[in-house]
Amino acid sequence: MRGDGDPIGPADERRPRVVIVGAGFGGLACAHALRSAPVEIVVVDQHNYHVFTPFLYQLATALLEPSETAYPVRALLRRVPNAQFRLAEVTDVDLETRVVHTDRGPLDYHYLVLAAGAVNNYFGNRDIAERSLGLNDLPEALELRNTVLARFERAAWATDAQERKRLLSFAVVGGGPTGTEFAAALAELVHGAQRRDYPHLDVSEVEVTLVEASDGPLPPYSPRLQRAAQRALERKGVRILSDATASKIEREGLGLKDGRTIPAATVVWAAGVRAAPLGDELGLEQGSHHRLKVSPSLQVPGHPEVFAIGDLAEVPDGDGSLPMLAQVALQSGKQAGRSIAALLRGDQPGALRYHDLGSMATQGRNQAVAQIGPVKLSGFVGWLAWLVVHIVRSEGLRTRASVLANWISGYLFRDRPIRLIAVPRTPDPTPDHDSDRPAAAPGGEGSPD
Amino acid sequence: MRGDGDPIGPADERRPRVVIVGAGFGGLACAHALRSAPVEIVVVDQHNYHVFTPFLYQLATALLEPSETAYPVRALLRRVPNAQFRLAEVTDVDLETRVVHTDRGPLDYHYLVLAAGAVNNYFGNRDIAERSLGLNDLPEALELRNTVLARFERAAWATDAQERKRLLSFAVVGGGPTGTEFAAALAELVHGAQRRDYPHLDVSEVEVTLVEASDGPLPPYSPRLQRAAQRALERKGVRILSDATASKIEREGLGLKDGRTIPAATVVWAAGVRAAPLGDELGLEQGSHHRLKVSPSLQVPGHPEVFAIGDLAEVPDGDGSLPMLAQVALQSGKQAGRSIAALLRGDQPGALRYHDLGSMATQGRNQAVAQIGPVKLSGFVGWLAWLVVHIVRSEGLRTRASVLANWISGYLFRDRPIRLIAVPRTPDPTPDHDSDRPAAAPGGEGSPD
Repeated sequence: MRGDGDPIGPADERRPRVVIVGAGFGGLACAHALRSAPVEIVVVDQHNYHVFTPFLYQLATALLEPSETAYPVRALLRRVPNAQFRLAEVTDVDLETRVVHTDRGPLDYHYLVLAAGAVNNYFGNRDIAERSLGLNDLPEALELRNTVLARFERAAWATDAQERKRLLSFAVVGGGPTGTEFAAALAELVHGAQRRDYPHLDVSEVEVTLVEASDGPLPPYSPRLQRAAQRALERKGVRILSDATASKIEREGLGLKDGRTIPAATVVWAAGVRAAPLGDELGLEQGSHHRLKVSPSLQVPGHPEVFAIGDLAEVPDGDGSLPMLAQVALQSGKQAGRSIAALLRGDQPGALRYHDLGSMATQGRNQAVAQIGPVKLSGFVGWLAWLVVHIVRSEGLRTRASVLANWISGYLFRDRPIRLIAVPRTPDPTPDHDSDRPAAAPGGEGSPD
Repeated sequence: MRGDGDPIGPADERRPRVVIVGAGFGGLACAHALRSAPVEIVVVDQHNYHVFTPFLYQLATALLEPSETAYPVRALLRRVPNAQFRLAEVTDVDLETRVVHTDRGPLDYHYLVLAAGAVNNYFGNRDIAERSLGLNDLPEALELRNTVLARFERAAWATDAQERKRLLSFAVVGGGPTGTEFAAALAELVHGAQRRDYPHLDVSEVEVTLVEASDGPLPPYSPRLQRAAQRALERKGVRILSDATASKIEREGLGLKDGRTIPAATVVWAAGVRAAPLGDELGLEQGSHHRLKVSPSLQVPGHPEVFAIGDLAEVPDGDGSLPMLAQVALQSGKQAGRSIAALLRGDQPGALRYHDLGSMATQGRNQAVAQIGPVKLSGFVGWLAWLVVHIVRSEGLRTRASVLANWISGYLFRDRPIRLIAVPRTPDPTPDHDSDRPAAAPGGEGSPD
């Protein structure tokens, strides 16, 4: 009996196979664009869910649950009948034999779309890589949430005032949208639910510091919007340290290049991303942020059947390249799909024509800055615009209703309902009881009597 | 500056301290019963949440999220103004010096309420303890959910039919309420969302087997209700193996005492619980299921200031003892609180007068059996009764609304929305970057470039 489409077998010439590595915005947009093409699509990702990344900071500050920031890939692919999903970690790509190697088996392809996205960029600082917390994907956001909540619990035991202050101090490195959104939401968590949960807590002991290397938060925005954002952040209780560059993490906290130390038990790294390491070993030319250089048609030089999109690709734009944004991923994914369909018809693949639909960043639950062409919005109006745009973009009616309900609840009651330090019993769900590693970690609950 | 109430200091004679170990049904009921008493209450638990255990099987079958089955203890204790919460693992209790030792510091007490609940009982079978999956608490339920979903993903890669069948076979040991509820919900997950997510999956390859040592499921129920439950389970697709006792777990599956082997990659243990190991080292007399023997007033012999309640206690009832049920935990918790208040007044503590409010068990999303005194309900009517009772008992308006919304969605659309294999990046959120263990597991995402 056949497996689930049995993709491990050789690709069928009569029905060319497109392998898409990555089920993020770019990968899924590409699959969707190919839904009517005479191809067999295999989407492979190391996780079984697609993450709506704009909401990750809300997961990390206990406002949303995983199912409100992530959606099962299989459910999303139901609308692409010629697509299948495979859960696996891609270990290598052989561009000569046209095979994607994974930890579960090989996938040969006629066309390949590399959409593996981005990871945190620590700029070679191994110390920071090991000791900071990230916010770039779901596991990191969950870990961050658990850690933030756990710090307060540990602080409740502390009798030494300095130790308590250290535990209640958080440093967020990176004043871009990710860092500022998280810092503002964290400050709100502190002044809202945490203050109610810890009646003896002196909220003035809690410090949320935003560390930004340039002269203020949200560098890509206009000066007027930058100032609006800074004011909003400060009103929320975020301390902003500009012209400050992180250099190391020690027990006391975050060390800066100028010699100062920011006391903090928790350092969150939101200072930059780089293309996923998948692209490093392919023998292809890489550009800024380690992205794979592609032509305007998103093809990889020397391999016209291979496309790279989204955060993994450096797409030429005038003298520079397109930024690493969700909109770029969505549009490049769609274009790659169209290009493959064109190639199948014997046509030339088209170039990506990127339309800048603007950017937005929140500063807590009722403030945001939005820049859409000449339109600049800030404050509550900006936040409303952000709300509408992101609810519309959320996947699935249930998710939208649920997210809206949670936001309304959070807005009205200033409460964060999901303040659980919830951890599955063992991190890796796949070990089978035939492996030498037991399915359950010994020494946990339920030790044999 | 004081810590959060600074309980690490010695207890104050003018305001006696009650330490409650465990924030389950019993522990919180006891705290609530003491809200007007002239005491300082400290509730300590190894998790920062209270679990609504009747819903755990729904978490494990991807119908509910953690925040719909668990609620932050601190939020629940807001209505008990003289109570504080401390997150810690109790390592020992010194009954002579009246100190509870934890991994975060000591807590001395005037009165102690042991409410640590129950853990899985493997009856000394270490093999099964290490290789089976549990369903007794939140981490186990999350692990089980992740594992069930991961098995389907692995099966999608399998080219060998026998291996695929093994991966898609699940054995649930224990035909009591826990096992039957989970088995039925798992069967529904398979025939519902999983079938839609895996279009090439042959659902007849999936096997959910319920293994029960007695002659049928739900032994405590009347024969008529047992038959109704069995029929409902079989209609849902659960295979019931009665008069079957588990003996070991091997690669092929679950080995039975009679020599048969049930092929299964996943074995779920719901065959019994025992009192938490906390009670083993106290030098106190233990009864059935390792529970601490208590007087009818729930006091531990020789230590009138120490109470044991809920699953941890063996409360005399006629010739036997009370069962290990949520209702017993709730009522004994309340009584222990009343008894402590009585002792403070110089009165005698009262005996627990247990009122059996009946039992219910579901068999999927529209079937249940309910036994309340002489009233016996089954089928859809039984399920409606279960729904009403459990929504009413759920904590918090938001949770109730959310749970109701999820159930309605699941009922109308036969969909399981939360099919995410979601794991935080590291299991333990508390390591600080001052320990020799790095905060982030090396080799994960974001390896330094």
